[in-house]
Amino acid sequence: MSAVPTPSSDAIDPSDALVADVFARNCDSRAALETVGGKWSILALLALVEGDYRFNALRRRVEGVSEKMLAQTLHALERDGLVQREVVTVIPARVEYSLTTLGAEIAERLRGLTELLEGSIDHITAARAAYDARRG
Amino acid sequence: MSAVPTPSSDAIDPSDALVADVFARNCDSRAALETVGGKWSILALLALVEGDYRFNALRRRVEGVSEKMLAQTLHALERDGLVQREVVTVIPARVEYSLTTLGAEIAERLRGLTELLEGSIDHITAARAAYDARRG
Repeated sequence: MSAVPTPSSDAIDPSDALVADVFARNCDSRAALETVGGKWSILALLALVEGDYRFNALRRRVEGVSEKMLAQTLHALERDGLVQREVVTVIPARVEYSLTTLGAEIAERLRGLTELLEGSIDHITAARAAYDARRG
Repeated sequence: MSAVPTPSSDAIDPSDALVADVFARNCDSRAALETVGGKWSILALLALVEGDYRFNALRRRVEGVSEKMLAQTLHALERDGLVQREVVTVIPARVEYSLTTLGAEIAERLRGLTELLEGSIDHITAARAAYDARRG
């Protein structure tokens, strides 16, 4: 996995020397984790690994997401530089969403995670049943 | 990364032959993704990579989490078999939380993700500023 690069030290502010830390409440990386971590973000990023998507096709791919929620999700991912929104000027004009380079790297990590979850689902389902039985 | 094993086929129900798919609205793996995704679950799993934690120590480590939210998060992770809750019978008795084998594997994937986010934070912050400037 990639090492954590230390930030460049052009400025004198000593806080620049701090490495980002998702455990720190006010660290920007915590906010980035909030963008990436939710179910809909994860599914949208994974879908875009398959190729560019128009909004409605992406909505069909990510089963169960509402129009409003997908729009919010894509805005947040675009804002953090993980997804690119492009207006394709054919007639009729259309809007396509694709992964940026960083978005693709993050999606790759998420794929490792979801493949593990999918491959462990029998185990997880059994754990749930046992837990619920204990709780009566 | 691990391949997706096909489920065992003891039963005749043909749906047993389906591979888990997080994109499918009703797939159990989607529910598992909901448990694991989410800021507090991710941070709790990452903290537990460092070692076992008592509730209050874990709450201090995961800055900003409320008592109620951490309790809910740990219950969900325990239910899905990712976290183990153990009552240590010393006096006074204490409760310790640790990762299961599957929980540790998942946490490892999450560490790859968060290290990438932490290492890309300058890029993400710049993307956000540019986005906000465009939106006025």
